Amino acid sequence: MTARSLSTRKAAPVGEVIAIGSEMLFSNRVDTNSLYIAAQLEQFGVPLIAKSIVGDDPNVIKKALGLALTRADFIFLSGGLGPTEDDLTRHAVSELLGRELVYREEIVDQIRRRFQKLGRPMHEINKRQGFILENAVALDNPNGTAPGQHLRHEGRQIFLLPGPPRELQPMVVTHLIPLLTQLGLRRAAKRHFRVAGLPESQVDALVAPLYRAYPEIRSTILAAPGDIELFFFAEEEGPRLAELGQKVAEVLGESIYATEEVPLEEALVRLLRSKGATLSVAESCTGGMLGEWVTRVAGSSEVFPGGVIAYSNLLKTKLLDVPEKLLRTHGAVSAPVAEAMADGIRCRTSSTYGLAITGIAGPGGGTAAKPVGSVFIGCSREGKTIARELNLLGDREVIRTLSTRAALNLLRIELLHSEKKGRKK
Amino acid sequence: MTARSLSTRKAAPVGEVIAIGSEMLFSNRVDTNSLYIAAQLEQFGVPLIAKSIVGDDPNVIKKALGLALTRADFIFLSGGLGPTEDDLTRHAVSELLGRELVYREEIVDQIRRRFQKLGRPMHEINKRQGFILENAVALDNPNGTAPGQHLRHEGRQIFLLPGPPRELQPMVVTHLIPLLTQLGLRRAAKRHFRVAGLPESQVDALVAPLYRAYPEIRSTILAAPGDIELFFFAEEEGPRLAELGQKVAEVLGESIYATEEVPLEEALVRLLRSKGATLSVAESCTGGMLGEWVTRVAGSSEVFPGGVIAYSNLLKTKLLDVPEKLLRTHGAVSAPVAEAMADGIRCRTSSTYGLAITGIAGPGGGTAAKPVGSVFIGCSREGKTIARELNLLGDREVIRTLSTRAALNLLRIELLHSEKKGRKK
Repeated sequence: MTARSLSTRKAAPVGEVIAIGSEMLFSNRVDTNSLYIAAQLEQFGVPLIAKSIVGDDPNVIKKALGLALTRADFIFLSGGLGPTEDDLTRHAVSELLGRELVYREEIVDQIRRRFQKLGRPMHEINKRQGFILENAVALDNPNGTAPGQHLRHEGRQIFLLPGPPRELQPMVVTHLIPLLTQLGLRRAAKRHFRVAGLPESQVDALVAPLYRAYPEIRSTILAAPGDIELFFFAEEEGPRLAELGQKVAEVLGESIYATEEVPLEEALVRLLRSKGATLSVAESCTGGMLGEWVTRVAGSSEVFPGGVIAYSNLLKTKLLDVPEKLLRTHGAVSAPVAEAMADGIRCRTSSTYGLAITGIAGPGGGTAAKPVGSVFIGCSREGKTIARELNLLGDREVIRTLSTRAALNLLRIELLHSEKKGRKK
Repeated sequence: MTARSLSTRKAAPVGEVIAIGSEMLFSNRVDTNSLYIAAQLEQFGVPLIAKSIVGDDPNVIKKALGLALTRADFIFLSGGLGPTEDDLTRHAVSELLGRELVYREEIVDQIRRRFQKLGRPMHEINKRQGFILENAVALDNPNGTAPGQHLRHEGRQIFLLPGPPRELQPMVVTHLIPLLTQLGLRRAAKRHFRVAGLPESQVDALVAPLYRAYPEIRSTILAAPGDIELFFFAEEEGPRLAELGQKVAEVLGESIYATEEVPLEEALVRLLRSKGATLSVAESCTGGMLGEWVTRVAGSSEVFPGGVIAYSNLLKTKLLDVPEKLLRTHGAVSAPVAEAMADGIRCRTSSTYGLAITGIAGPGGGTAAKPVGSVFIGCSREGKTIARELNLLGDREVIRTLSTRAALNLLRIELLHSEKKGRKK
């Protein structure tokens, strides 16, 4: 994934996130809280200036907060609000800012009631969570015992939030967003385009001449393998943003699969549903990834009866009716076999569409004629079957992911055209 | 994922990672370099004290490095070594440490040769990458133009590394690890256990009485949903570490699926291969995830012909020969149907084993009798078919992941027993 600002404008204010907890420093831990908070701030056009992850060490926490105070307007500390001796965020902030921790009986009562509901007595140590910084506002945490805290300090807004994402995230929605709005932040007006089937360089070449004429609009491109997102932010809704949005929509056309936070598989499921069409899949090198992606979408059962994972040639014949002769003549990784797989699964399952993938994901199995990354995708409906050849670069995981995306996108384009030309079922 | 140290010992030295690049602060960017470096340092028993991600701002970079110099012995800066004006790491370090940047013609020659190999002329701006900090050692980068740099400063070891993971990672292996060894770090002796089928609390309850008797050995537990890893680190190999390792192996027994960095699906593929057995899958609520996981393992085609995604009841009947009556009587989410699916796919594909999953992944579809999270997994071989009921908590993604793990683990345990009792094929 790469992300870069295509154009920048001097944007005050800025945010900073400090995640607290020694366990967050392990090699297999990703701090998702900072990503979540960054996503919320992006909506308001507020960039992060830095983020850091620090262990349960009061001096390290104080240094991180001290640095943030010199440069960030909105500072978020996540974690370290539990009841144990390792939970040092309250104390570190108290010491650094010279604000006392005040015991608030009503907060402890709330925690006690929470335990009662669960049919358990409150532990004595949970009383520690009743200490709130002088002049801070306690923020209710419906999913845990640790209340959040909000305080203003020398013009900075500081938020203390619990570490578990299932506690932090709802608190951001119910407390933080309204607070940010109250503090004068305005949700930026935006246009959002999600694009499939074009490389980043081509998307950039197409849209750069457009957004350059709108220097007051902040443009950002995020690129993951096979998936590109464009964002255009303006301080408020207006004709200039609308104009740019329209131009981008025109130049990218069918390559745009969504104009909101919807992944490709969900856009496809919605499209299938809107047409009353169903899809079955036949997978070789992706081994189930295509089906797994489609069924990530809640409610996909309405349009997806299932499919076949035909990893071996025998199963391609046995479960998908691919003629043995086709496999012998063209090889399993070929356009005719991709087409036969798509036809086969469509007919076997009586679906409107059959979608197939066959290829060489590597690291082994490549030949001079069909190197690793050679993939064929097939799409079948009654009266029309097509195949596309892909030549992909990357490791096994990347090749499988790009193949899955390409197959989803091939069907999406087919569905769009079936609308224009009248659908055959 | 949670990770925590079960016991700690005062371990100097410590490391710190600073990732540089404004694009790294977007909400959908994860800094994998710091995770990679942390994993390498963990091998040497060196914990991180903090890590941070900063934008392309020389002042912010300098502040981060300044702070790191006060507390970390090994400091890693990744990113910002490119040829553009945004690449400010060299300059920021030069200014903070008061070390000049020295132009090194031989490095530019190397970069020029790299371009020549690609059949392109070197850009003038790439000459910027020939500037190395006074008294620093340049580290060769075979996958990019930016050389790394290593310098010693007031007892601290500082490493400047390029940002792209495919450049950084090989440089860590070829330069950094030997350098760390040269600097006196020793790869810690360790025992590693990967555990499936037991909750974290139970694993901890079983092993805590053991490791508490070895305070000189550092114990760490990493827990992801359905997957637990235990690490025991000693300064060097010896009888005490061997003793603890053996006790842990005994108490956890069959729950241990690997004693090295091998994921569950790979452990299973190896086990299948070692027995000359094959596996086919039948998936309902996981929609292909089980097949996708098995085929993540390169070479899995040897043991995995494929399977069926039977998301609809119709396909359960049509492609897996599940009797309609069974579906009517027990419902699709039931032990008899899980067993019939496993039998069905095994017979259809002539595999040694059939493995099936049927359940309610949510958010919709739950009932009072079978709420969201009700899942049945089935495992079939000739002469023996079994099913297990799972009652899982979590969102759609978690329920599907836990179901997949549980199914893989069910077959693993069956395979272990088939060995003891003599395999029937």
